[in-house]
Amino acid sequence: MSNDKDSGAVTISRRGLMLVLSSPSGAGKSTISRALLKRDSHITMSVSMTTRPMRPGETDGEDYIFVDQDTFDGMVAGGEFLEHATVFDNSYGTPKAPVEKVLGQGRDVLFDVDWQGTQELASNAPKDLVSVFILPPSIEELERRLHTRAQDSDEVVKKRMAKATSEMSHWSDYDYIIVNEDVDESVARVETILAAERLKRIRQPGMVDFVRAMGVSQ
Amino acid sequence: MSNDKDSGAVTISRRGLMLVLSSPSGAGKSTISRALLKRDSHITMSVSMTTRPMRPGETDGEDYIFVDQDTFDGMVAGGEFLEHATVFDNSYGTPKAPVEKVLGQGRDVLFDVDWQGTQELASNAPKDLVSVFILPPSIEELERRLHTRAQDSDEVVKKRMAKATSEMSHWSDYDYIIVNEDVDESVARVETILAAERLKRIRQPGMVDFVRAMGVSQ
Repeated sequence: MSNDKDSGAVTISRRGLMLVLSSPSGAGKSTISRALLKRDSHITMSVSMTTRPMRPGETDGEDYIFVDQDTFDGMVAGGEFLEHATVFDNSYGTPKAPVEKVLGQGRDVLFDVDWQGTQELASNAPKDLVSVFILPPSIEELERRLHTRAQDSDEVVKKRMAKATSEMSHWSDYDYIIVNEDVDESVARVETILAAERLKRIRQPGMVDFVRAMGVSQ
Repeated sequence: MSNDKDSGAVTISRRGLMLVLSSPSGAGKSTISRALLKRDSHITMSVSMTTRPMRPGETDGEDYIFVDQDTFDGMVAGGEFLEHATVFDNSYGTPKAPVEKVLGQGRDVLFDVDWQGTQELASNAPKDLVSVFILPPSIEELERRLHTRAQDSDEVVKKRMAKATSEMSHWSDYDYIIVNEDVDESVARVETILAAERLKRIRQPGMVDFVRAMGVSQ
């Protein structure tokens, strides 16, 4: 807690939160995430660790933290991941330490994980996690977006639709639900959720000192 | 769930929430509540039931619902109150039925209860309750506001300050904490909390039908 003498504004130190945005492909998650990261300087993207080889154009520590399998397995054994998974022989995970550091600085972290990763985060950090599921306004609109995006064959789009409805079946595991009719409106809704969550008592640890300074006994 | 063909807007039926704003006297709760009720047509004030005699200028069913002690005691015995208390031989309580009706219509209810009433509401309706504690920006500002308001003697203000710090000791029972430096900013923060809470999955029961209509299995 500090009291800025010039403006008279009270500043309460806060603990950051972990934000998960999930959606089926085509429902707008990527667009919303990019807009959020651009507009809100208090939230940063989590950088995952992976054992897969670095690809041209990728930067170590930015796109991913690239490690060998032994290092990864040792961290799994040491409980050093908030969540991890193996996909096509490659391991991916979110190391705890850097996330904890950012949260402790009162800044928020955005995660790009699927429903299984979200469940693992919820189980390892239930108080810090805020999960938002983004739904398309209708199945027709989702199909239209999947068509427009890639101009793929009906067969490919059909497979994607099946995958999307399967992904959507996990909507009820999430704290908040947004139906994405308009991207700007959906970004504003995510910002509203963030603004409200930041006012939660548990995210304002400095409030303890602030109240104590007013002579209030607990 | 309905789909407005004219605007294309998706409407998801929702369940209302119960909002409690608490603060020590002088921290601005009444001003914030009035502004909120005026600006947000989706929230209404809960009307309490009481056994105390009606006063001149009061309207039955508007200021309070006035009942005799036998009626009140019968309702207590029947578990028909969300919270109730006896103060100076008079009983006060919030009947369940009208609140449940409003929540079922997807509208929110604002309560004017103390920390004990809040605890009782939290215990009887944990999923529906959203509790916000409003703190003054400093103890000096609280004292200044208590002085300005009534032009009372130092003795009276001292007693009020003791009562206020006692009330403030319950701040840590609440979900959200707002430091009221500027009334307009604090009203905006309560509105942000309401907007976010309305996006919670549990407050959007119509989402079940909406998702089912997209062919998503649960």
